[in-house]
Amino acid sequence: MTIDSALALLEPRFGSRLSRAQAMREAHGRDESYHEPHLPDAVIWPETTAEVAEIARICSEHGCPIVPWGTGTSLEGHVIPLRGGVTLDFTRMDRVLAVHPEDMDAVVQPGVTRKRLNEELRDTGLFFPVDPGADASLGGMASTRASGTCAVRYGTMREAVMALEVVLADGRVIRTGSRARKSSAGYDLTRLFVGAEGTLGIITELTLRLHGVPEAISAATCGFPDMDAAVRTVIETIQMGVPVARIELLDELTVRGFNGYSGYDMPEQPTLFLEFHGTPASVAEQAEMLGEIAAGHGATGFAWTDKPEERTRLWEARHKVYYAQQSLRPGARGYVTDACVPISRLAEAILESRADIEASGLIAPLVGHVGDGNFHIVLLIDPADAAEQAEAERLAGRISERALRLGGTVTGEHGVGVGKMRYMSTEHGEAWQVMGTLKRTLDPQGILNPGKLVPGN
Amino acid sequence: MTIDSALALLEPRFGSRLSRAQAMREAHGRDESYHEPHLPDAVIWPETTAEVAEIARICSEHGCPIVPWGTGTSLEGHVIPLRGGVTLDFTRMDRVLAVHPEDMDAVVQPGVTRKRLNEELRDTGLFFPVDPGADASLGGMASTRASGTCAVRYGTMREAVMALEVVLADGRVIRTGSRARKSSAGYDLTRLFVGAEGTLGIITELTLRLHGVPEAISAATCGFPDMDAAVRTVIETIQMGVPVARIELLDELTVRGFNGYSGYDMPEQPTLFLEFHGTPASVAEQAEMLGEIAAGHGATGFAWTDKPEERTRLWEARHKVYYAQQSLRPGARGYVTDACVPISRLAEAILESRADIEASGLIAPLVGHVGDGNFHIVLLIDPADAAEQAEAERLAGRISERALRLGGTVTGEHGVGVGKMRYMSTEHGEAWQVMGTLKRTLDPQGILNPGKLVPGN
Repeated sequence: MTIDSALALLEPRFGSRLSRAQAMREAHGRDESYHEPHLPDAVIWPETTAEVAEIARICSEHGCPIVPWGTGTSLEGHVIPLRGGVTLDFTRMDRVLAVHPEDMDAVVQPGVTRKRLNEELRDTGLFFPVDPGADASLGGMASTRASGTCAVRYGTMREAVMALEVVLADGRVIRTGSRARKSSAGYDLTRLFVGAEGTLGIITELTLRLHGVPEAISAATCGFPDMDAAVRTVIETIQMGVPVARIELLDELTVRGFNGYSGYDMPEQPTLFLEFHGTPASVAEQAEMLGEIAAGHGATGFAWTDKPEERTRLWEARHKVYYAQQSLRPGARGYVTDACVPISRLAEAILESRADIEASGLIAPLVGHVGDGNFHIVLLIDPADAAEQAEAERLAGRISERALRLGGTVTGEHGVGVGKMRYMSTEHGEAWQVMGTLKRTLDPQGILNPGKLVPGN
Repeated sequence: MTIDSALALLEPRFGSRLSRAQAMREAHGRDESYHEPHLPDAVIWPETTAEVAEIARICSEHGCPIVPWGTGTSLEGHVIPLRGGVTLDFTRMDRVLAVHPEDMDAVVQPGVTRKRLNEELRDTGLFFPVDPGADASLGGMASTRASGTCAVRYGTMREAVMALEVVLADGRVIRTGSRARKSSAGYDLTRLFVGAEGTLGIITELTLRLHGVPEAISAATCGFPDMDAAVRTVIETIQMGVPVARIELLDELTVRGFNGYSGYDMPEQPTLFLEFHGTPASVAEQAEMLGEIAAGHGATGFAWTDKPEERTRLWEARHKVYYAQQSLRPGARGYVTDACVPISRLAEAILESRADIEASGLIAPLVGHVGDGNFHIVLLIDPADAAEQAEAERLAGRISERALRLGGTVTGEHGVGVGKMRYMSTEHGEAWQVMGTLKRTLDPQGILNPGKLVPGN
């Protein structure tokens, strides 16, 4: 009844697809965050749902923790095996099982990454819009309820996942949802597993909603005299129902980093990055409406990038914004926050946080999916300086508490993992205890990604 | 530990807001469906969440069933108190608590109906789009995951509900979700209670997402030579990404009933009812695109209704289509089905079902929210004729089985209640057992709407 006794059964069964090599364990002992690594006892590369079920049964009997692994790009320590056990690396379950162009959905294994899926869709006229920046696995994206730059128009993984196949802690395999676009047939188990971070079950197959590649796409950047003007523009845009596909805010600091890192030359002021999808006429109309709204708030310097290669360059650079921000203080580590508030409170949330940071003297650029009310302040700290680390934690804590006070959430898209556990009781109150009850019901031994998300886990 | 001992405590506590009068019990003993009525022992009209929590605590201690009641417009027997107990009538919890125009959300009590909410929103430039036909309560709509004619554009109650306050079986009050537009902070309890039909908790407050009233609205009807042509038009429309706000299919029989009942004079052929929302230019463009697609499938007789009063008349008539269908066979009772399939299988699902029905000799008109793949065949039967009843059950069973075979669901929007229980094991397999496990965890005494939705309830 130990990890060792589980491994004694798993090792002969999986042969070279199970590794206890130190290097492999280290590669699976951390994610992209600053959270303290911890090594799994072994890594297994399953190839089928039946194998995952078999592993679950063995681990369940022997009390051996299981952590599912996609690409390791999580940002709150989700995939760190805090109590050892086995990490299931899904890179060998990476097939696109079916694409249904007429129904605009695709069925994939959890190891398929979002870019891979979009490559496979290239000739179908369809695309998968959820775009967290990293080329994450779709199983991981579902597990953290990922979103990103296109969520304002296309929604998050909550909307994108239609159905799942899930292996439960005891090895039972269930299917949730269907390929029908809606259903009232009972509890929404699909959305219970989306965002559960592998603590309720292991996702082994996903059915995802796709969208038609828009006939026309146009992108723009637009500078503002101050943060409030930029945020007001966003609020009005959403309220007018302009179906903007992307509306991203970079503060002046981030623009400075962006210019230096990616070779742009934008004025250093709060700037919106925009993208419009639709027919040529509708894209033109959306752009015109946005131009009017922005002008009303004193916007300057609309710069259009209609050429596909320019757009690609712009968004690729946007996706590297974390590195651009880090370049503002070479050698620094970024302490990333993820507050999300009702958009009416966005300006307040941002401005109060910046005042706080200014008083601290830390450098902390901001980027935000502002159409959703979600913004990331990245506190750049010297990893060797314990005082800076403590100060970053204090400031991040105040950002989170402020988000809750303003009716929002401490995590818009990164998830809970290890890093946001401390806020869950405040954010959810008694509902967090209910989450714990559900967890213990579906995973009584507590073998699924222990130490994360729920109380007493 | 009986219903009587619970009532002995509840009666003095609620005075005139508790009724054991036969007429009141009868009014709360059935819904709008054909399902066998059963009377509650008492009806209570709570006024606050604290009162609901107090009732739950008492009923939990005494094993007394609780059934929440909104307007009684459910279609699968959801609100029938199969094992007696108390029905909580929410008509006194009918306040719109807050409207946040900048964030485009509203906070309401569960007894507010969708039309009431839209009246309150009249001066805000916002509206609530979920529209199941009946002027149902928003608590009831959330509990059945209702949708209706606008779901193709605006989503169902799954997308519309941002946050909930819920009283659990043991009287604990929890809040799920927040007013932030997205979150990755743990299990999606909001969507666990949406569609749970009152079996997991009692909804006492809802935060709902609103939408901007479109600048321009245009509606049209359009006839087709056959069903397949109409369905192909729908599939292409969705694939092209035309953001149609409503796209409803009426078969020739329903059109006949519609003409007679509502005083229209449309050609008796498969007909799409359409509505476009947007700016004037985008509405014109959508209409043009739809016109081209429809023409490619042999459509005839596009009729436009741009005047608000004509549009209102059209959609009010559409909402009375059930009565229009019933008028095809005066004195008949409608046995309503609710299949929903991937849209690529819609033509097949409809045509096979019609062939089946033709062989039976029953009159069974069809109407469908075809953008979602959802259609209702209404089997018109003589309520006194047991053979017809049996035949309707057989045909409805085949429609449900066909929906499952084609990758769909037996209920797109009406819910499980009593009527769809028999299909749940086939639709969900082992996942249905998981639903039962979750139910027993949150409601160990089984007092919340017993006999519905989950196994062993």
